[in-house]
Amino acid sequence: MRLSDVGEFGLIERIKRIVARCDPDVLLGIDDDAAVLRFGDVALVVTTDAFVQDVHFRFDYFSPFDVGWRLMAANLSDLAAMGSKPRFAFVDLAVPRDTNSGQVLEFYEGMKALADRHGVTIVGGDTTSSPDRWFLGLSLVGEAEGGRFATRAGARPGDLLVVTGDLGGSAAGLRRLAGGGRPRAEDSVVQRHLRPEPRVDEGRFLVHTAGVRTMIDISDGLSSEVHHICRLSGVGAIVWAEEVPIHVATRQVAEEFGDTPLEYALNGGEDFELLFAVPRESWEEVRESWQDRFSLDLTVVGEVVAPEEGVKLQEGGVVRDLPSGGWQHFS
Amino acid sequence: MRLSDVGEFGLIERIKRIVARCDPDVLLGIDDDAAVLRFGDVALVVTTDAFVQDVHFRFDYFSPFDVGWRLMAANLSDLAAMGSKPRFAFVDLAVPRDTNSGQVLEFYEGMKALADRHGVTIVGGDTTSSPDRWFLGLSLVGEAEGGRFATRAGARPGDLLVVTGDLGGSAAGLRRLAGGGRPRAEDSVVQRHLRPEPRVDEGRFLVHTAGVRTMIDISDGLSSEVHHICRLSGVGAIVWAEEVPIHVATRQVAEEFGDTPLEYALNGGEDFELLFAVPRESWEEVRESWQDRFSLDLTVVGEVVAPEEGVKLQEGGVVRDLPSGGWQHFS
Repeated sequence: MRLSDVGEFGLIERIKRIVARCDPDVLLGIDDDAAVLRFGDVALVVTTDAFVQDVHFRFDYFSPFDVGWRLMAANLSDLAAMGSKPRFAFVDLAVPRDTNSGQVLEFYEGMKALADRHGVTIVGGDTTSSPDRWFLGLSLVGEAEGGRFATRAGARPGDLLVVTGDLGGSAAGLRRLAGGGRPRAEDSVVQRHLRPEPRVDEGRFLVHTAGVRTMIDISDGLSSEVHHICRLSGVGAIVWAEEVPIHVATRQVAEEFGDTPLEYALNGGEDFELLFAVPRESWEEVRESWQDRFSLDLTVVGEVVAPEEGVKLQEGGVVRDLPSGGWQHFS
Repeated sequence: MRLSDVGEFGLIERIKRIVARCDPDVLLGIDDDAAVLRFGDVALVVTTDAFVQDVHFRFDYFSPFDVGWRLMAANLSDLAAMGSKPRFAFVDLAVPRDTNSGQVLEFYEGMKALADRHGVTIVGGDTTSSPDRWFLGLSLVGEAEGGRFATRAGARPGDLLVVTGDLGGSAAGLRRLAGGGRPRAEDSVVQRHLRPEPRVDEGRFLVHTAGVRTMIDISDGLSSEVHHICRLSGVGAIVWAEEVPIHVATRQVAEEFGDTPLEYALNGGEDFELLFAVPRESWEEVRESWQDRFSLDLTVVGEVVAPEEGVKLQEGGVVRDLPSGGWQHFS
């Protein structure tokens, strides 16, 4: 069966059956944003991301610096979703022989700029040639301080669903970049797409100070992430369309292209904001402690319900199914 | 400047200057087979390898199972060279959408077969689409037990240079595979190329029981690895051509193709045997304890000399420069 028929998630299920191995030191495996591994007295958190030219990025509108930043941001965001402290990065890089070495170095500079902000050391990797395209793999090793980390599996009916920042900006940026014309680099939605800010400090705060146990990063779009939490927590959810935070610049781009801004937020992905579940009775306390520390908004966008209610979108008083609309490879 | 002008090692030097960051927890960085990182009370050992279709392997003569095995072997061999215990593997995989899912699963089965033998759990990774070729990245996390590990930097003049097993078999296998005809799968040199055996237990024994401090795996050819040790240890070396262990089947292939068997051993690479330096006075003891444990041969192939003597090959009483002849990407 071809991958285009099996789909990304179908393939992952089959892979899981092959690699299954009883290992008591694997505290959290392939299903989450990152794996958690017991290693002596510490809990390691490890994540890896592949990034392929003409699939994940195009040099039409990404500079090599942007590519490095973006790849590092995606990986940092995975650790942010665990509430973990990132520490070390390893890079696999395959580039064509006729590449200008300055481009490769600029790619490293992009990674380094973001790594420095978060105390991450780029330790090593493998550099090799590729017949035509750039292929990148980045692995990050971090620590679950005190052995604590968030998963996708802890949401309970009655919990509120909360997002950091606002959504859809990255999709709007991509729309503008791909739509031709001359997008200005300082355009806020273009910046969102090219230079996203992973919520590392925010994730650590939510897990270690605010006591959040269920979190995911928004890399595939809000709808897809809500589905992930529901599947792994064994719950349902209702997302309140009118509450989903969408920045004014994002709305403007949607209008310009005749798109629906909510569509960008639900299915656009790559915002690298955080989505977490919090018991209703803890919400006020979480919000207050957050406000003492961060200026970024927190917004309640829905609630967790019983599993038999499924995953729904409530919009203008009408409740309908919310399909998992994020990007799936191979489909 | 194009990468083809800078070369792989020139590029790595430039990358090192960019990513340089003072981090006391990086015990060993980008220069060795793997990085060693302090993490609480444990010393983590991490390595990563990129593996690109039509650069590192061809489906003309690699099955997906072979690709998985080979990639896992290369990474395990890096940890073997540190004397480390491998524990967890992470896979980045980009494959074309029209790939048969059975091929992807067979690739995982190849990795799993070798991982199981060495107590490694394949924990997770990223699976994505590629426009045309397979791109693979594998990262391995292991432990430097008791904080001990070998490096490339500890060789001293007077030390003996010793290799495990025999060399050149993988190059002979590749020659036979690439030479057309119908290589038999059971052909020992073909097996050497497609299903190499990383020397994980042997590496751990050498570091933790035999006290070896300087070791490297032979992934680029003996000449190249001797140069790496000399550069990082600040020494010279003489390799004794007549002593380099070459299996009879390897000699037969060389004869068949009109090649020199020693060339396969010196510059063919991918044998994944170990090369280590041992003080002359310890050699007998190391050899005896080894023989109690392993049936694989150990062979003294040369000696470490003063840095000003350079890296030489002594053959038939004639001493000449030994160039670093291994594979370099981009050159």
